[in-house]
Amino acid sequence: MRVLGVDPGLTRCGLGAVEGRPGAPLGLIAVGVVRTGSDQELGARLVGIEAGIEQWLDDVRPDAVAVERVFAQHNVRTVMGTAQAAGIAVLCAARRGLPVALHTPSEVKAAITGSGTADKKQIGAMVTRLLRLAEMPKPADAADALALAICHVWRGGAQSRLAAALARAAPKNARR
Amino acid sequence: MRVLGVDPGLTRCGLGAVEGRPGAPLGLIAVGVVRTGSDQELGARLVGIEAGIEQWLDDVRPDAVAVERVFAQHNVRTVMGTAQAAGIAVLCAARRGLPVALHTPSEVKAAITGSGTADKKQIGAMVTRLLRLAEMPKPADAADALALAICHVWRGGAQSRLAAALARAAPKNARR
Repeated sequence: MRVLGVDPGLTRCGLGAVEGRPGAPLGLIAVGVVRTGSDQELGARLVGIEAGIEQWLDDVRPDAVAVERVFAQHNVRTVMGTAQAAGIAVLCAARRGLPVALHTPSEVKAAITGSGTADKKQIGAMVTRLLRLAEMPKPADAADALALAICHVWRGGAQSRLAAALARAAPKNARR
Repeated sequence: MRVLGVDPGLTRCGLGAVEGRPGAPLGLIAVGVVRTGSDQELGARLVGIEAGIEQWLDDVRPDAVAVERVFAQHNVRTVMGTAQAAGIAVLCAARRGLPVALHTPSEVKAAITGSGTADKKQIGAMVTRLLRLAEMPKPADAADALALAICHVWRGGAQSRLAAALARAAPKNARR
């Protein structure tokens, strides 16, 4: 399965796509960041994030999208923008009917390094090793996006299949 | 000027449009809520909010959109969803090139009632009086959206003209 990971942010939104399945070697598809200027109005920044993510979805054509779950306890100065960038990533994926998973930073750290409290350097080192890269992806947001995608390949895939099975089994109760 | 106010939320997103200018009577254009089910996945909810806001923008054709500014200090359980709904409202308006203003709850309360600490009932009473309505708009999210729109007519209009003048005067420095 091909997974696009999104480490949300307004100034730098990390994006990383990997191909793989549990128990097999992983392959890097693409990695990078979508940037918006801190001098731009919020509306222009959100439009830029949306356009960037849409382009990535067009190029990468993932089977699923994994987005970092944002908590209110994060850096208060930037958390609202981070939450809004995450929301746009979820929106773009859902509009295409792609399954979306939210993983917490500690879930990602634990999946990649075995420790839920690993630091950014350790995450970057493991991403580099797992994808057999010549050097660590930069900036850290890009490496974090790859870590999210790898985490999803390893643990999210099973969750999505479970959720899909439950959705099929449950009575239709969507409402607006 | 015609202003669409948005009181963001995932479960109930309040929307209210008014027509007016400072010093003249205000007119109600439309008021209501866009709802999504708490049993739905986040992606489906955000798609529902986007579709609802797009419909409102098509129907109301506002000159500007006023969205409540969300703070991390708000109710932690719901603040992330509120921030994401607000982000989608800003995104939808900015995609159409509409000016977007963010007003804090205390700015809105002060504009409508003269007190930055007025309660919901007082806001609802003033909205009802200012728009000469037969009864208070319900739910409270709908009345709050009208209060945002009125606040913007009275104080935001001048701010947008100032911002537009500054933008015209400033050198082009948008970047992606």
